[in-house]
Parts: sequence; structure tokens; C-alpha cells
Amino acid sequence: MEYNNLDATQSFGKLKSLKPFNIKTGLTKERIKKYIAKQGGGLTYSYAALPVDEKILSVLQQLSEEQEVIEKYKSLLKGDIINTGEGRSVLHQLARGQVLSEKVIIDGKDKAKFYLDELKKIKDFSEDVRSGKIRGSTGKAFDTVCQIGIGGSDLGPRALYIALKGYCSEAGIKQLNAEFISNVDPDDAAEVMSRVNIETTLFVLVSKSGTTLETLTNQMFVINSMKNKNIPGFDAKKHIVAVTSDTSPLASSPDFIKAFFMDDFIGGRYSASSAVGGVILSVAFGYEVFSKILEGAHEADVLALEKDITENASLLDALISIYLRNILDLPVTAILPYSQALLRFPAHLQQLAMESNGKHVNRDGKPIGYSTEPIIFGEPGTNGQHSFYQLLHQGTNICPIKFVGFKESQRKTDIEIKGSFSQTKLLANLSAQIVAFARGKDDNNANKQFEGGRFSSLLFADRLTPKTLGALLAHFENEIMFEGFLWNINSFDQEGVQLGKTLATKVLNGCEGDEVLKAYSDLL
Amino acid sequence: MEYNNLDATQSFGKLKSLKPFNIKTGLTKERIKKYIAKQGGGLTYSYAALPVDEKILSVLQQLSEEQEVIEKYKSLLKGDIINTGEGRSVLHQLARGQVLSEKVIIDGKDKAKFYLDELKKIKDFSEDVRSGKIRGSTGKAFDTVCQIGIGGSDLGPRALYIALKGYCSEAGIKQLNAEFISNVDPDDAAEVMSRVNIETTLFVLVSKSGTTLETLTNQMFVINSMKNKNIPGFDAKKHIVAVTSDTSPLASSPDFIKAFFMDDFIGGRYSASSAVGGVILSVAFGYEVFSKILEGAHEADVLALEKDITENASLLDALISIYLRNILDLPVTAILPYSQALLRFPAHLQQLAMESNGKHVNRDGKPIGYSTEPIIFGEPGTNGQHSFYQLLHQGTNICPIKFVGFKESQRKTDIEIKGSFSQTKLLANLSAQIVAFARGKDDNNANKQFEGGRFSSLLFADRLTPKTLGALLAHFENEIMFEGFLWNINSFDQEGVQLGKTLATKVLNGCEGDEVLKAYSDLL
Repeated sequence: MEYNNLDATQSFGKLKSLKPFNIKTGLTKERIKKYIAKQGGGLTYSYAALPVDEKILSVLQQLSEEQEVIEKYKSLLKGDIINTGEGRSVLHQLARGQVLSEKVIIDGKDKAKFYLDELKKIKDFSEDVRSGKIRGSTGKAFDTVCQIGIGGSDLGPRALYIALKGYCSEAGIKQLNAEFISNVDPDDAAEVMSRVNIETTLFVLVSKSGTTLETLTNQMFVINSMKNKNIPGFDAKKHIVAVTSDTSPLASSPDFIKAFFMDDFIGGRYSASSAVGGVILSVAFGYEVFSKILEGAHEADVLALEKDITENASLLDALISIYLRNILDLPVTAILPYSQALLRFPAHLQQLAMESNGKHVNRDGKPIGYSTEPIIFGEPGTNGQHSFYQLLHQGTNICPIKFVGFKESQRKTDIEIKGSFSQTKLLANLSAQIVAFARGKDDNNANKQFEGGRFSSLLFADRLTPKTLGALLAHFENEIMFEGFLWNINSFDQEGVQLGKTLATKVLNGCEGDEVLKAYSDLL
Repeated sequence: MEYNNLDATQSFGKLKSLKPFNIKTGLTKERIKKYIAKQGGGLTYSYAALPVDEKILSVLQQLSEEQEVIEKYKSLLKGDIINTGEGRSVLHQLARGQVLSEKVIIDGKDKAKFYLDELKKIKDFSEDVRSGKIRGSTGKAFDTVCQIGIGGSDLGPRALYIALKGYCSEAGIKQLNAEFISNVDPDDAAEVMSRVNIETTLFVLVSKSGTTLETLTNQMFVINSMKNKNIPGFDAKKHIVAVTSDTSPLASSPDFIKAFFMDDFIGGRYSASSAVGGVILSVAFGYEVFSKILEGAHEADVLALEKDITENASLLDALISIYLRNILDLPVTAILPYSQALLRFPAHLQQLAMESNGKHVNRDGKPIGYSTEPIIFGEPGTNGQHSFYQLLHQGTNICPIKFVGFKESQRKTDIEIKGSFSQTKLLANLSAQIVAFARGKDDNNANKQFEGGRFSSLLFADRLTPKTLGALLAHFENEIMFEGFLWNINSFDQEGVQLGKTLATKVLNGCEGDEVLKAYSDLL
């Protein structure tokens, strides 16, 4: 297996010589029916409104083979050191609790067994909390679970929690309220603490290293505000569990009810399907719901092994994203879910994509000569339509869009007005936007002219269930992994966040003679 | 006064010939102390980490004069037809309740008086709700106020509400809980309705035209779920007020307690300081708090009249933004507030900027040959540091940043750990990031190399108070207005959202023979 830069491949050169498909004039019902790929969890990926045709797809297939992306995925699955920067394996797919490869043994440990054991611990613990067997220190059952974590320990679990509240309500599943504390801004923790009843709240402290400044500070903030309440018999350590690496200082601390483990082989932003998301989601919604997320994610992981790119939605999405980024030179991608439940999903994908692939060196640490990850942003439709869509339709630059939509609502509470239900109106807007962006509209008044030729894909399913959500999550995780292989970068380290940390410590130490730092610090 | 395209000015040509200032090597404590401009509401604008020097600033001053932006602002203030696309005046500054110009008379009406009268109505009504004089139909006092609106009727008011909760808590101000329903996705309204007690909830229906599909649908959704509760004596119209144009079908409808008015001279995205934000904020926090927002906004409006660009922060911000966009060709800007209270402020600015200036024609409807508004995105720091900052530091493209920060927290509940308070840690991170982005860091390991030269500005104040928030809001409103004048575009219409609406209606009518639309509609 070889690792080559994107611009060293033959197919990349070929791609440049091909004309992009004209979606403005070329969008037909036949194309829309044909340009469809199955994804796991009941999802389907529609790519008719992207500027690719059979010729381009065949070169993209070739690019995928030249870069040996399926072989690299298999290599990742069997535990090879894919995270070159940190010298680590990459095992988040194994955390779904399913085995896709030969045994992965690291430091003498069977990693599949390790993650399965943690899942069993999560199942037992969450059942005991939900049944009231495990209670707070003053004897009251927990009704709230509050995650303390930042970045990957916050965005993914939060996005998934918000995404499934409606589903669980409709299904009549008992729910514990979930809260999140992330920012070192004291107003964040103070606001949450002003709302929760500490006697009935279980805190989940999440830090892989056990040294994350923001998270440990917020742990102390929470414990301090517990103490300030002076509740007789209250014992903070009966209200906190830890999710951490088994080698971290938190792992065997007596300050917690217990600790759940992940390890160095799962990056924070890929950890939503590990204990990082598992504990809070299982406590809030029940382990059964969390296990369905894993099931959907696993389905997507399996499909990602397909060599034929038209049968492999996440790979196809990755290849076309590379085409948009490196051939058409488009620096931004919008993620627009037509589902209020996916309110914070774009923020999670923003981290997943930008932290993984916002890199300027290849996997061997050598500078590369082409663009990597675009900037990712997004808000739910139809809200976005009444906000930034003006620029997307008529601005001076093209911004490709990834739409997401579901045929049915989650809560199934709806109303028919003027002959249609709200859900029907929502979907009518989604179809309309895809076509409006693609075809545009000519008008003699240039202010009412829509250029069209604005690209979008669509991931859709019947309903946003736990399984569908798991597949949606894994679709993007795998897409980003494939992009990394295509760009020949390491999608699993994050050296770019270190300098800020170092300088922040320097400021806290009085700036150590750094006059520029001091001058800014003095302003604030 | 002349209206010329940006590329028709002499100074634009001159700008191109100047070398950008090198912030990587040129950032000094003297520069940081000097490159400061005062803004209203206690805000200060720091522009030391932007690639401009005295030469460039002097050409920017010239550009501002060539484009007569202060004269155009004055022309706007006195009611001239600045919104050329829709043939309307632009009066959101007048809605602050202060007069900055000669009388604005439209259709025989004194507009200053009109907005003042509405403010008086808001004051009286909100006091009556808060005192319990106005109650729900079953005799209970209101404890919740829920806005039904989308786009400008949602994002701005929501961002301001979230921004001031902590301030009001700390100040001991009585608060009503605020909720928001925006999306036509039925899960949005269903979720909110599952949470609120309808007997004690006041709804604020906001639609200028009185015809917004999403909002009227959600009004019916809300009324329907009220009816489904079958509460004896319950009367929906005693639970809803309208905020609308005085000519809309809602204006004199018997379905509301009463109606508050705005008019066609205030665009949705500029309406946060009109009744659109005023009613909900005054009910939730009291009129006094809302009036302080107006006071801060007015201070910024006054400062925006300054001709010397180094004394006019919003104009300076606009000019440098043009420099970054049109000379350095940077297509994205990040808004990163180091304040959890500003959680949704970036989403509001995203609309404000992208809907206002994401245009491809000039104010006369003629196509232009240069780029307009960049894409805007953002999340609060330090959360973003653990997410997308990797790309901002080490990605292959430069993305300028607008930082916002405050010396003190809002809630003043803080904890000292390892010798520093959380607020101190937050600010240390902010200073550190500005310097890390600007200077970068050399390293023999290219993966640990930071290129630097990544531009940022900083708006800061002592604390996020209502007055500071008002000035912050107006800073960006005015910046966007000035950008529009510089680009010679109309920042006040939004033709780019029409095509999607038309096609959505077509889908709801069975696609009317449009096969492409039908094919997408069939997928969903």
C-alpha cells in the first residue's frame, strides 16, 4: 500500500481536464432517479444536483483506487498506525461494538473486548440510574444528567441528544433531562447550575486525558456550587461519574461513583459513539436507544467497505467533495438539515470536518500544495431560508450544500393548513431549494436573476430514528476519513490547537516578558 | 451625491498597489495601544492585528470620502429611498427612539413619533403583563413569553434574549421565561408546546407582512394545541399579541390582545430594536432593560456619523472588511465571541451580513464585477478552540476573525483554581488566540508549524450590559450598511429568497408539470 499526495495521482490530472457537468441545464427526472446511493440506517444519498457525470465518476472511481482508500480503511480497521502524527491506531468504528476486521490487539489487550466491556458497563449503570437503584447522595432518584466536557466531549453528544428528544417523546420512552457545561466562561456553568436541582442531577465528567483545563475547571465550579448549597448529607462524589482514558489521573480517582473508559485510539471528535456519548445518551434515553445509534453507525461502516463508489455513499460524498474543493476551488460547504431536531448537528460536523482535515501537511508531516478542508457552517431549514440563503442564491461565490431531510416528522404532531401539513410544507421547501439552487431563473431585472448552477447533495430517510441518526453520524465520519486518505493527510491529530494553549498558559503566568501578549492582556 | 461602483473609484485602484501590513512581524505593544477606536456603549474596537498601516488607512479614508458614505448615511437618516429595489426608506436607526436628522415624514406621518408611540405602547403593555394587570384568560399571571416568527423576527430577538439572561439574573431583575418557535418543521412548535403551560404563556406573533407562511402556520399550530387542551374558559385571543406592519391583515384582527406596529421601512434583519425585539424583551426583562439596548444602539449610531475613520469603529470595520474581501480575496469571516451569553449572536450576524450584502447587482440593479459579502460563521470561544480552530490555525486558507470579549462575566459567580478565576482563563485564551493567529510559530516539524499572518479584530468592553449589547448590535448593523455603500449595493432588499418560495408553492400545488421538481418531491 502506498501513500501519495493527491496531486501525485494520474486521476487528479485527468479530473482537471474534464468539464464539470452542467446541472443548470442537465437536471432531469431520469438523472434524479439514477444518481442515488444507498447508505445505512435507511438513508439514501442523492447526488443528481452535483456537477458530476459518468466520465467524472469514472475518474473518481479511478482516484479512489489509485489512493487505495478501501485498503487504507481496512488497514485502519485492523489497528494499523493511521494517526501518524501521534503514532496511534484509530478505532472509533470498533467502538460501535461490532467487529469488522481481524482481532485488534494493542499492548496485549483485545480492543474489541475492551469496548464491549465498556458498553456492558454503560448498559448496567444506565439501567440502574433509570430504575432508581442508583440514587443521589440524599436518596433521591436522578432526573437530570449533565455532561461536563468540551469540543468532542460536548458537540457530538449534545447534537445527538437534541436529535432524539422528539423521537423518544413520541415513542413514550422515559427521559431524563440532559444538560451540558462546556465553556470555561463562568457564565456557562453558572447558568446551568442555576437551573438544575443538584440532589437529582448526575454529572458526567468527560476528559480523555484527564487534564483538559476547561473541563477540570468546570468540575471544580460544579463541586463548589454543590458545597455552597449546604445540603445535609450531600456527597458530591455520589453525583459524578467520569469518562476518561484508562491511563488518565481520573481513572482511579475516588471522587466519582465510577469511571467509564475510552482510550487514545478514539479522537474526541470521533468519540460520540464511545462512552463519551454512550453514558449520557443511555442515561437520558435508555441503553436500547444508544445501541440503535451504534447499529446504524455500524451499517454505514459496513457499506463504506464497498469498492464501487456508486454503492458507497460516504466515499462518493468524499470524492465529490474533493472535486468541488480541488478542481472547482470552492472554499466553503453548507450543511442544511431540514429537521429542527438536527439543530446542533452542523456544529458537530463543523468540528468533525474542520479539526480533522483543516491541515497543511501530509501524513508524513510534509507541506502539501493543494487545498484541504473547506469551512463548514449550517443551520436548519427553513430557518436558513429566511436568513443567509440570499447570499447562497445570489452572492458572488458558489457555496456547495449538503441537505438532509426526512419524510416524516419525529413527534408526529402536525396540523393541516391550506391543504397541507407542516411537514409537507417543510419538504416542499427542501425540494424547491434544491431545484432553485440548481436551475436558477432568468429575469430581465438582474436583481431578480438567479444564476443557478449551485450544487447540492441530499441525504434522506423516512424518519430520524436512533438507527438513522447513527448512520448519519457515521456517514460523515467515514466521508471525512476518506477525504483524509484522498488528500493523504492525517485526519486524526490536531496540532493546530496547541499554540493557543501554550500562549494562554503564558498569559496566566504574567506573559513571561512577551510584550505583545502583555499588551493584549492589558486591554482585557 | 453620486453612487459609483467600488471598482470605479480611484482609491480602490490605489489600494491594490499597496502591500498589506505584515502582522506576523509587525505586531508591537505600541501598535496595539494605538490601533484602537472608541465605539458606543463602552465598547472599544482594536484593529492592531489586521493587515493595515497608515498608508492603507489613509487610502481607506479616501475611499470612504470618494464613496461619500457619511453623506449616504445622513441621506438614509433623513428618509431618502435607500432601499432602491423595493423603493423604500430605511429607518431602523429611528426605531431606537432618538432623532438623528431632520423630521422624516412619509405618507404624511411623522415616523419618529410613530416609533415613539410604539415604544410607549410596549412600555405600558409590558409593565401591565409583568405586574399581573394583564393576565391569561383563566386569570393566571403570565410567566412565559413565546415569540412566533422566523428569520429577522427570530434570530435577533433570540440572540439578545440569551445575551441578557445572565445580566438580569445577577441584577435581580424579575424575568419571564422566553421561548421561540420559528421553523415550519412541526417538531419545532410541538417541542415548545410540550414544554410550556398555555395558561401562563403569552405568545408574540411576529410577521411584518402578515403573510409569512411559516409564522402563520405556527400560529395555527399553537392555537390548535391550545384548543386540544380543552381548558374551561380558555380563550386563545387573550394569549396572543401581534407585531406587524400597520397595513398588514393582522393589524386590526380581533384574534389578538393587541397589535404593535413596525413598518416597511425596517427590514426583518434590522428589526431587533423595533417592536419585533421590543415586545418580547420588555415582557421578559422589563422595558428599562430594552430601553438601555436602544440607548447603546443610539450611541453607536451617533458615532457612525464621524468622518474620520479612526474615530468611527463601524465604518473602519467596514472599510477593512472590504480590504480583506476585495484586495486580499478572502471569502469567509468568523465571528468568535468569548462570552457564552453571545451563543446565538453569530447566527444573527450571519443573517444580518449575508442577507444584506450577499448580492450580485448594484443598487441600480446592474451586475457588478467584484465580490460582495463573505460567508459568516461562528461559535463562542473557548468552545471553538476545541473544535474548528485547527483549520483556522493550520488550514490552507486564511479566514479573518472578529473577536468579541468582556473583562467581567455577567453572572459574577466564579471560582479560583490554580491561581486564576475562570473569567481570567477565558480572557487569557482570547489574548493568546489573537497573538497565536497573528504571529504563528516556527517549528522544524512542519506539523507543528504555524504560518501566522491570520488577521483578527477585537471588540471589547467591561461587561455585557444591555447598553453594551445595543451598541454591539448597532456596530454590526452600521458596519453592514457602510459595506453596502462602499460596494454600491442595496443592503435592504432580499430578492434572492423569492425563487425558493415560488417553487415551494409550486410543489404544494403538485409541481404543475415541472418534472424535475416532481422527481425531487417524489424522493421525499
